[in-house]
Amino acid sequence: MRGAFVTLEGGEGVGKSTQIAEVVAALETAGLSVVRTREPGGTALAEQIRGLLIGECEECMDADTELLLMFAARNQHLARLIRPALDSGDWVVCDRFTDASYAYQGAGRGIDTARIRELEDFVQRGMQPDLTLLLDAPVEVGMARAARRNSDGDRFEREALDFFERVREGYLARAAADPQRFRIIDAAHSLETVSAQVRKTLIEFSTQWGSQA
Amino acid sequence: MRGAFVTLEGGEGVGKSTQIAEVVAALETAGLSVVRTREPGGTALAEQIRGLLIGECEECMDADTELLLMFAARNQHLARLIRPALDSGDWVVCDRFTDASYAYQGAGRGIDTARIRELEDFVQRGMQPDLTLLLDAPVEVGMARAARRNSDGDRFEREALDFFERVREGYLARAAADPQRFRIIDAAHSLETVSAQVRKTLIEFSTQWGSQA
Repeated sequence: MRGAFVTLEGGEGVGKSTQIAEVVAALETAGLSVVRTREPGGTALAEQIRGLLIGECEECMDADTELLLMFAARNQHLARLIRPALDSGDWVVCDRFTDASYAYQGAGRGIDTARIRELEDFVQRGMQPDLTLLLDAPVEVGMARAARRNSDGDRFEREALDFFERVREGYLARAAADPQRFRIIDAAHSLETVSAQVRKTLIEFSTQWGSQA
Repeated sequence: MRGAFVTLEGGEGVGKSTQIAEVVAALETAGLSVVRTREPGGTALAEQIRGLLIGECEECMDADTELLLMFAARNQHLARLIRPALDSGDWVVCDRFTDASYAYQGAGRGIDTARIRELEDFVQRGMQPDLTLLLDAPVEVGMARAARRNSDGDRFEREALDFFERVREGYLARAAADPQRFRIIDAAHSLETVSAQVRKTLIEFSTQWGSQA
């Protein structure tokens, strides 16, 4: 049977890197074969595109160029890794996907979401993740954690708090619009509590997925 | 006054590189300030995207990824070079533009032209070149010239003649659909005859453009 496509989303400092490992472990414990990947990236070419996206100074890259590159990488990732893996029965766990484009480029940076939707439709043709975990925490909590983690702690003070508030609201709006697909995880709790919640959610989802076979 | 956006199109061996120099010379002789550029490319980032397009083996790159990258480069080129130059009064002479996407990816490789049009609309929002010179010659003529020029002469024998026939037909169909914008130059004649025709066409066009001021 076809595998499920699971994505992890969330703003700065919500513990996404830690929790993606929990997701993979929970699924492997359930006997599933799991491919872990990330966006932008996931294939050799898509990682090269990621390099262009990260390397270029923001002022130099037109906002639509950034969107087109992001969706070029996404298209390649879907065509060469995600779809073949799902078709062969593997589960795919992806660190960020299109919801991040809506949250960061759309809500955060104010790019017209109709433009994002055009490219989403072009590339995904209706395809969506089967499950999206949104790690959600108040912006102050995430920023304090991220600042502790980064030697360049000041960066987060320089970034506008407003920006991350808009990203968070963008994510929550996406989740509210598609409650079937989203599970919101309260990431303000302790690591152990969040991890337990993530594992529980994955076990429930994989049981339900298996019973649809 | 705003400059004009002039594009050169044509298949293999039609003499595009030679004639683009004639176009620039004719315009400069008329006292115009000219920016010469090419696609894919034309800005630092767009040239990096060109590198991805040329470097990747065809089997590895999904057709939609190629289109998205092509239009990402085009968007950047328009936003950071073509539009600012035109607005400042320069003329822009570009070696290939969107007609090449229709001829090569569409007619040549069979990609659904509705997909190309979606991205064209996304990036250009109705903007088109003011003048397009199509250098047209029978495929056998162009291929014989290209084979003489290339040390790797066999490459063109390996390429399907059919492919270049489809590209030529694709270009001619584009020209037939927009006769106001296109001038078809018969590139099967001698270099001197073709160059004279190109110069004549440009002088007529620039006179007409100036009288619209």
